[in-house]
Amino acid sequence: MTAVDPVDSHALLAPGWAVCPAASATSDTAYLRALLDAEAALTRAQASLGLAPAGAAAAVDGAADVSGFDVAGIASRARNGGNPVIPLVADLTTAVGAEFGPYVHRGATSQDIMDSATMLVAARTLDLVLGDLSRAEQALARLAADHRDTAMPGRTLTQHAVPTTFGLKAAGWRSLVLDARDRLAGVRLPAQLGGAAGTLAAFTAFGAQDGRALVAAYARELGLAEPVLPWHTLRTPIADLAGALAFTAGALGKTAVDVLTLARTEIAEVAEGSGGGSSAMPHKANPVRATLVAAAARRAPQLAATLYGAMAAEDERPAGAWHAEWEPLRDLLRLVGGAARDAAELAEGLRVNADRMREHLGLTHGLIVSERLAVELAPVLGRARAKELLTRAAQRAVAENRPLADVLGGEPELKDLDLADLTDPTRYMGSAGALTDRALERR
Amino acid sequence: MTAVDPVDSHALLAPGWAVCPAASATSDTAYLRALLDAEAALTRAQASLGLAPAGAAAAVDGAADVSGFDVAGIASRARNGGNPVIPLVADLTTAVGAEFGPYVHRGATSQDIMDSATMLVAARTLDLVLGDLSRAEQALARLAADHRDTAMPGRTLTQHAVPTTFGLKAAGWRSLVLDARDRLAGVRLPAQLGGAAGTLAAFTAFGAQDGRALVAAYARELGLAEPVLPWHTLRTPIADLAGALAFTAGALGKTAVDVLTLARTEIAEVAEGSGGGSSAMPHKANPVRATLVAAAARRAPQLAATLYGAMAAEDERPAGAWHAEWEPLRDLLRLVGGAARDAAELAEGLRVNADRMREHLGLTHGLIVSERLAVELAPVLGRARAKELLTRAAQRAVAENRPLADVLGGEPELKDLDLADLTDPTRYMGSAGALTDRALERR
Amino acid sequence: MTAVDPVDSHALLAPGWAVCPAASATSDTAYLRALLDAEAALTRAQASLGLAPAGAAAAVDGAADVSGFDVAGIASRARNGGNPVIPLVADLTTAVGAEFGPYVHRGATSQDIMDSATMLVAARTLDLVLGDLSRAEQALARLAADHRDTAMPGRTLTQHAVPTTFGLKAAGWRSLVLDARDRLAGVRLPAQLGGAAGTLAAFTAFGAQDGRALVAAYARELGLAEPVLPWHTLRTPIADLAGALAFTAGALGKTAVDVLTLARTEIAEVAEGSGGGSSAMPHKANPVRATLVAAAARRAPQLAATLYGAMAAEDERPAGAWHAEWEPLRDLLRLVGGAARDAAELAEGLRVNADRMREHLGLTHGLIVSERLAVELAPVLGRARAKELLTRAAQRAVAENRPLADVLGGEPELKDLDLADLTDPTRYMGSAGALTDRALERR
Amino acid sequence: MTAVDPVDSHALLAPGWAVCPAASATSDTAYLRALLDAEAALTRAQASLGLAPAGAAAAVDGAADVSGFDVAGIASRARNGGNPVIPLVADLTTAVGAEFGPYVHRGATSQDIMDSATMLVAARTLDLVLGDLSRAEQALARLAADHRDTAMPGRTLTQHAVPTTFGLKAAGWRSLVLDARDRLAGVRLPAQLGGAAGTLAAFTAFGAQDGRALVAAYARELGLAEPVLPWHTLRTPIADLAGALAFTAGALGKTAVDVLTLARTEIAEVAEGSGGGSSAMPHKANPVRATLVAAAARRAPQLAATLYGAMAAEDERPAGAWHAEWEPLRDLLRLVGGAARDAAELAEGLRVNADRMREHLGLTHGLIVSERLAVELAPVLGRARAKELLTRAAQRAVAENRPLADVLGGEPELKDLDLADLTDPTRYMGSAGALTDRALERR
Repeated sequence: MTAVDPVDSHALLAPGWAVCPAASATSDTAYLRALLDAEAALTRAQASLGLAPAGAAAAVDGAADVSGFDVAGIASRARNGGNPVIPLVADLTTAVGAEFGPYVHRGATSQDIMDSATMLVAARTLDLVLGDLSRAEQALARLAADHRDTAMPGRTLTQHAVPTTFGLKAAGWRSLVLDARDRLAGVRLPAQLGGAAGTLAAFTAFGAQDGRALVAAYARELGLAEPVLPWHTLRTPIADLAGALAFTAGALGKTAVDVLTLARTEIAEVAEGSGGGSSAMPHKANPVRATLVAAAARRAPQLAATLYGAMAAEDERPAGAWHAEWEPLRDLLRLVGGAARDAAELAEGLRVNADRMREHLGLTHGLIVSERLAVELAPVLGRARAKELLTRAAQRAVAENRPLADVLGGEPELKDLDLADLTDPTRYMGSAGALTDRALERR
Repeated sequence: MTAVDPVDSHALLAPGWAVCPAASATSDTAYLRALLDAEAALTRAQASLGLAPAGAAAAVDGAADVSGFDVAGIASRARNGGNPVIPLVADLTTAVGAEFGPYVHRGATSQDIMDSATMLVAARTLDLVLGDLSRAEQALARLAADHRDTAMPGRTLTQHAVPTTFGLKAAGWRSLVLDARDRLAGVRLPAQLGGAAGTLAAFTAFGAQDGRALVAAYARELGLAEPVLPWHTLRTPIADLAGALAFTAGALGKTAVDVLTLARTEIAEVAEGSGGGSSAMPHKANPVRATLVAAAARRAPQLAATLYGAMAAEDERPAGAWHAEWEPLRDLLRLVGGAARDAAELAEGLRVNADRMREHLGLTHGLIVSERLAVELAPVLGRARAKELLTRAAQRAVAENRPLADVLGGEPELKDLDLADLTDPTRYMGSAGALTDRALERR
Repeated sequence: MTAVDPVDSHALLAPGWAVCPAASATSDTAYLRALLDAEAALTRAQASLGLAPAGAAAAVDGAADVSGFDVAGIASRARNGGNPVIPLVADLTTAVGAEFGPYVHRGATSQDIMDSATMLVAARTLDLVLGDLSRAEQALARLAADHRDTAMPGRTLTQHAVPTTFGLKAAGWRSLVLDARDRLAGVRLPAQLGGAAGTLAAFTAFGAQDGRALVAAYARELGLAEPVLPWHTLRTPIADLAGALAFTAGALGKTAVDVLTLARTEIAEVAEGSGGGSSAMPHKANPVRATLVAAAARRAPQLAATLYGAMAAEDERPAGAWHAEWEPLRDLLRLVGGAARDAAELAEGLRVNADRMREHLGLTHGLIVSERLAVELAPVLGRARAKELLTRAAQRAVAENRPLADVLGGEPELKDLDLADLTDPTRYMGSAGALTDRALERR
Repeated sequence: MTAVDPVDSHALLAPGWAVCPAASATSDTAYLRALLDAEAALTRAQASLGLAPAGAAAAVDGAADVSGFDVAGIASRARNGGNPVIPLVADLTTAVGAEFGPYVHRGATSQDIMDSATMLVAARTLDLVLGDLSRAEQALARLAADHRDTAMPGRTLTQHAVPTTFGLKAAGWRSLVLDARDRLAGVRLPAQLGGAAGTLAAFTAFGAQDGRALVAAYARELGLAEPVLPWHTLRTPIADLAGALAFTAGALGKTAVDVLTLARTEIAEVAEGSGGGSSAMPHKANPVRATLVAAAARRAPQLAATLYGAMAAEDERPAGAWHAEWEPLRDLLRLVGGAARDAAELAEGLRVNADRMREHLGLTHGLIVSERLAVELAPVLGRARAKELLTRAAQRAVAENRPLADVLGGEPELKDLDLADLTDPTRYMGSAGALTDRALERR
C-alpha cells in the first residue's frame, strides 16, 4: 500500500515535504497509479459479479501498469474535458486491446475513478503520516517522562507567569499528536461509484441486478469503505480529510512555535538536534525543522477552507467545486506528511537544557512565585496588608536587583515563615507531575 | 440550558441569524451569563471539596446574576488587560461582598473562565442547532420518500446527463444533514481549569490535595466534560468545533445551491414555501432562505481557518492566538445556528413541481438516455455502428427539433427494439430508488 | 523575459494551468533559472561598482546556466537549511571554479536571492497573464459592441427581474478584466538585497562605500524596481501580488459563473466555443473553460490569505512566515495564469444565442416589465389602484398562461394606453446601451 | 462625516475594537444612518434634476433621522426579504407621509442603497483609520530618528545573526504603515445606482433623460466617486477594500509580532507604555496592545478571502455572494480600526531599553560579528585558513565562555589586526543609518 514512486515533482520550493515518503505517495505518478488501480478494480469487481469476463479483469489488471503511461501527455490532454480520467481511459483502452477494451471504465463516470483514486492516495499517505506521528509521539513521551520534574518558567502573554515543568509541556505536545492521530485514523475513506449522475444506471444497463452489490464489490477490491450513497456532490470524505489534516498541521504547529520560542538565542532552553547552518555565520544553528513545521501550520487552514467551501457543490456533479479540490487536497496531504516527518525528527533530536530552564526561574528575582506568596501571606497578614507588602517588596527586588526572598527576609512580620521554601519556584509546580503522569497513560 | 436572552445585538447586517435562537444564545449577554456561570461553578466546586465555605458558594451563586452586571462597561474596561474576565471578576467580587469576595475566581486565570464559558455557550447553541437539523432531516426524509420515484434530469457540469430522481437528491441532502449532526454531536466540550500557567498550582496553595479532583468537580458543576490536561494552548476543543461547524455550513450549503439552481426562473422545479418579495417587481419570489444559507456556507470555511490557525499557540497561554478565536467562534456558532434554522424552514416549506421535472427530461429531445441507447444498441449493431448511428440520430433530433425516439424509429435496423421503452427517461433511473430506500434507513 | 521552459511539473491534477505558458514560467526549472539570474546579477552589480573583477562577473554569468544544475538534487539538499539557495550556491561556486568562486553570492543572504528570483518569476509570469487578459478584453469588447442592443432577462437572486442587454453584461465582464489588468500592472516588483540582517553590512566589509548604490545597481541588472529598504520582513511586494492576483481570479470568476449559468441546458443563452465532451453521453457539451476558471476563483482567495497572513513576520528574517509564502505565491501565479488563458479562450469562442435570450424575456408572461407598468399606470389609475390591478393581472397571466399584455388589454381603464409598447421588454432597457458605450470607451 | 454614534454593540468579545471610534462608525446605528443618508441623497439627486419636487427632497431629508427608526425591528423584519433595506424603505415611506412618500427609494433597488451606505460607512471609518495610522507613523518616525544608531542584535530564524539598529527596525515598521496608508487612501469608493438589474430603467420610466446624469448627481450628493457602471456584481470596490484592509492588518501585525518578541521576559528590549496587569501576578506587564493587534492580523486575511471569493457573483444581482460580504467587511473595518488605534498607542508609548539591546550584542560571545571576521581575515590568512581558525575560535569562545576577541587575541597571525574594532558589533552596522535616513525622508 505504501510503495514509493520516483518523485516526479522536484519540490524546489518545498523543503518541508521534499524527499519525504508522503511526497512520493502524492506525486503525479502516484495519482496515475491510483487512477489505474481504480480502473482495474472496477473491471475486477464487475467480473466478480459475472458482469464481465474474467479475461477482461486480467487484461485490464495487466495493462494498468503505470510504467506504460505518459503522465505528461495525459496531463496536457486533460485540458479538453477538464479532468485526466478522460485521456487515461482512452490510453488504457488502447493498451487493453480490442477484445477486452470495451470493459475498461464500463458504466463509470470520470469522477468515480478520480474520487476513488484520491481515496487510495489519501489512504496510502495517511499510513505514512500515522507512522511519523507515532514516532513523534514516542519521542515526546520519552521527553515528558525524562523531564517530569524539570522546572521551567511558565510563560503567558510572552511573560513569565508561574513555574511549570518541561515534562508537562512535552506531555501537552504529545496529547495533541494523539488527538491528531485519532482524527486522521477516524476518517472514513469510501470508494466512489455512481455512474454519470449517481444512479448507477449504466451498470444496470450492463446487466447489474443490484447496483449496490457492485458498489460493495468495488469497495472490496479497492480496500476502501463502502459508501451508502454515491458522494459526487456529498463531499463528506473530502471535508473530513480537510478537517483532520488541518487539525494535524495545527497540532504539530503548537510544538513548532514553542520550540521556535524556546530556541531563541536569549532563551536557549531547547535546541534542535541538528540545526541548519549558515554559510556566512558559523555560529548560527537555525531551528529548521520547527521553521518548516510552523510554515505548514500557516498554510494548512486555508487549504482546508477551500475544501470545506467545495462542499457547496451544485447538481449531481459540479462545475468547479470538484475541480477546486484536487490540488488543495494533495497539498494538504503533502504538507502534513512533511510536517509529521519533521516533527518526528524534531522530537527525536530535541536537546533540552534543564540548567538553563532552572536559571530562568530566577530572571524575575523570584516574582515568578508572587502568586503563591499572595496566597500564603494573606492568612498571616490579612489580604490587604499582604498585597501591599508584596507589591512594595517586588518593586524593591527589581529596583535593587535582589532576590525577592532577600527583600522579604527583612520584614519582621514574616520572620516565622520558611521564606526559602515559599520562594523556591520548584516548590510551586502544583499538579504538573500528576498531570504529566495521567497524560502519559493515554495510548 | 437553552434559555433565551434578549438579543442585544441588532444583527442589522445579518438576516441569516437575526432573531434566531442561536443569536440569543451567543449574544454578549449570553456570554456574560456563561462567564458568571463559570465563576459560580468554580466556587461551588471548591466548596464541594471543602476548599471554600458553603456560604461562599451560595454567595457567589446569588451574586452571579447577569441582570446585575453592566455588559457595556465590562466590555470597555476589557481593553486594559485584553479580556473581559478581569473587569468581570472585579465587579463580581464587589457584588459578593467583603466576607466571601475572596472566594471569587480563587486560583483561576482569566482563560479558565473564558474558555469554560465558551464551552457553555457552544453547548447551549449546539443544542439549538441540533434541534433545527433534526427538523430539516425529518422534512428531507419526507421529501425523499414522497418523491422516491419522481424522475428529473440529473445535471453534471451544468448540463443534463442522465435521469435521476428528486427522491435521491433529497436523500443525499438528508445524508449530509445527518453527517453534520453526527459531527456536531461528537465534539467533546471540556471545562477549562489550569490556573495561571496550567499547573493548578494556586489551587494547591489554597489547600487542594489533588488539583485533578478539583478539575473533575468543576466539570461536573458545569455539565461539561473533564479535560485530561488544561488546554490553554492545546486547542483541540476549539479546532473540533471549527471543523464540525464548517462541515455543517457546507452540508447545508449543498442543499442551498441546489435549491438556488432548481428555483431559477427557467428551471422552476422547486420553489421556496414563502419566497421573499420585491416591492417593485410583484412577480418575484426570491429563494431567500437558500440565499442566506448559501451566504453562510461562503463564510464559515474562512472562519474555521482562523480557528485552525490559532492552534499554533505559543507558551502556556498565548499572545494573540487565543484572542483571535473569540469572535470567529461566535460568528461560526451564529452563522450555523441561523443556517440550520433557515434550512429547516426551507426543507419544510419546499414546493416541488414534479410535472416540470418530468417535462425537463424531454428538453434534450431524448438525448438524456443516449448513454442507455449506446449500451443497448451495441449488442444489436456492434459498438462502432451503434455509436455512429446514435451520433447521427442525435444530430438530427436536435436539428429537426424532434424526439430521438422518432428519429430512431425510422431506422430499419432497430425495428425489433422497444424504442418507446428504451427512450423513456423514467425507465433509466438505475438504482435511484434502492439507494434512496437504503439512505432513508439511516437514523 | 518570457522564455518557455520545458514543463517539469506534469500538472496531472491541474487542467486549469497545465500546458499554459504560466506553467512553464513558474516551473521548478523556471525558479532555478531565476535564482541563477539573481546570483549572476549580483556579481555583475558588484563588478559594475568595482567591488569585483570583471572576470568574476563573466565567470558567474557563464556558469549560471540552468542546464548545468540538478534541480532535484538541489531540492532534496534544501531540506538541511530550509531553503534551496544554500545548496545552489555550493553548486554554483563549484561550477564557477577556484579563481572566481569567492565572488559568488558574496555578501548576500539566501533570502536576497530567493526574493529577487521570486520577483523575476512574478514579472515574467505577469507578462504572460497581461497578454491573455488583453486577449480576453478585446474579445469581450467585441461581444459587448456586437450585442449592445441584444435584450435578455436581467436576473437577480436567480429570478428574472427586468430586461437588460448582453452587451451591458459583456461590458461589465470587460471592465473587471481591465480592473484586474490595472491592479496587476500596478504592482511594484523590487529587487531584494540586504545581507544577513538587512543592513548591507557584509557588502560594506567587502568594500562598498554606499550599500544603497549597490542595491540600485543590483536592481538595474535584474530589471526590477529599486527598494527603499530591504524588505525581508516588510512584505509589501508579496502582499500586493497576493491582492492583485486574488482580484484577477475573482474578476475572471465573475465571467465564469455567469457563463456557467447561461450555458445551463434549460437556459442555453450562451455556449462555449468548444465544449468538453463526454464519452458516454454524446449530447453533452460541458462548459469546461468556465468550469476551470470558476475553480481557480474558488482557490485564489485562500492562497492570498496565507500570503497576507505572512506579513506578520517577526525579526529581521522570520522562521516560517517566509517559508510559507513560496508555494502559495507560485500556486497563485499559475492559477491566475491558467485562468487568464482559459478566460481568453472562453471569450474568444463564446457563442451567443440572441434568439433564445429574446425568447426568455417572455418566460414570465410579461411580468418582466411589471416594474415599468407600475410606474406608468400610477399616474393613470393612482398608485394604489394601479398596484391592485397589476397584482391581479399578474396572477391571471400566470394562472391562465397568457401574456400580461393580453390580460391588461381587457381592462377598460387602460384602453388609451399603448400596451404593446408598455409591455415590450425591449422597450424597457433604460440606459443599458449608453452605459455599454461609456464602458467601452475605457482602454 | 465622522460623527460618533452610541456604541450599540457591546463588543464583549472584542477588546481589540471596543470603545474605539471605528466601533461607533461601524455600529448597526451607523449603518442605519448611512442607509438613511443614501435614501435621502437619492431623493435630493432626483430633485436636483427636476425628477422630484423640492418638497420631496426636504421631506425625505427631514424624515431620514436615525433616531426615528427602530434598528432592532428593522433587523428582524429583514429576514423576510433577506436585506434590511426593504423594511427600512417601508418605515421611511411612512415617516415621510402620504404626499412625498412615493418619492422614497424611487427607482432604486435595495442593493443600490445598501452598497452606497456601505461605501459611506467605509469612507467614514477609513478617515478614522487614516488618522490613527498618521499618529502611529509619527511616533515610529520619532523612534527611528531617536534610535538611528542604537545597536541591537539582528535576528534571523530566531537566532542572533549580525548587528542592526533599532532605528532601522522602527523605520521599517513605519514604512509598512505608510504603505498601508497609501493603499487605504487609494481605494476608490463609488456610489451605487443601477435599479433592479443595473440598467437604470426605472429612473428612465420616471422621466430621467439620461440615467448616467442621475448617477453622477447621486454620487455628488453622497460625496462618493461616480461609478462607470453599476457594480452590483462587479465588486471592485469591495475587493479593493478587502485587499487594503488585509494589507493594513498585516502591516501593523509586523510591528506587533516584533514587539511581542522583544518584550519577552528574557529579551525585554522594549516594553509597552502601560502593560496589562494580572490580578494574581503583580510582576506581570503584558504587552496587551501588541497582543490585540497580532490577533487582528490573524483574522483579517481570512475575512478578506471571503470578500475576494464573493467577486464570483452570478447574474445581475447574486443570491448569496452579496449577502456574504456584509458582516466580513464590517468586521474588517472594525478590526483594522481597532488595530490602528492600538498600534498608535503602542508606538506612542513604547519604552526602548537601549542598554539591554547593547548587552545582548554580547550574548553570542562576539560571534555576532563572525561574518565580518570571515571577510576581514580572508585576505590576511587565505579563505580556507581564515574559516578554519574562526570556526575553532568560535568553539573555544562558546566552550570557555570567553569573548571571541579574547580568544582571537591569542592568535599570533592576527597580532597586527585591530581586533577590538573588528569584533565591536557597533562597528558592523553597514548602511543601517543611511537606510534609516532615506526611509525617513518619505512622507
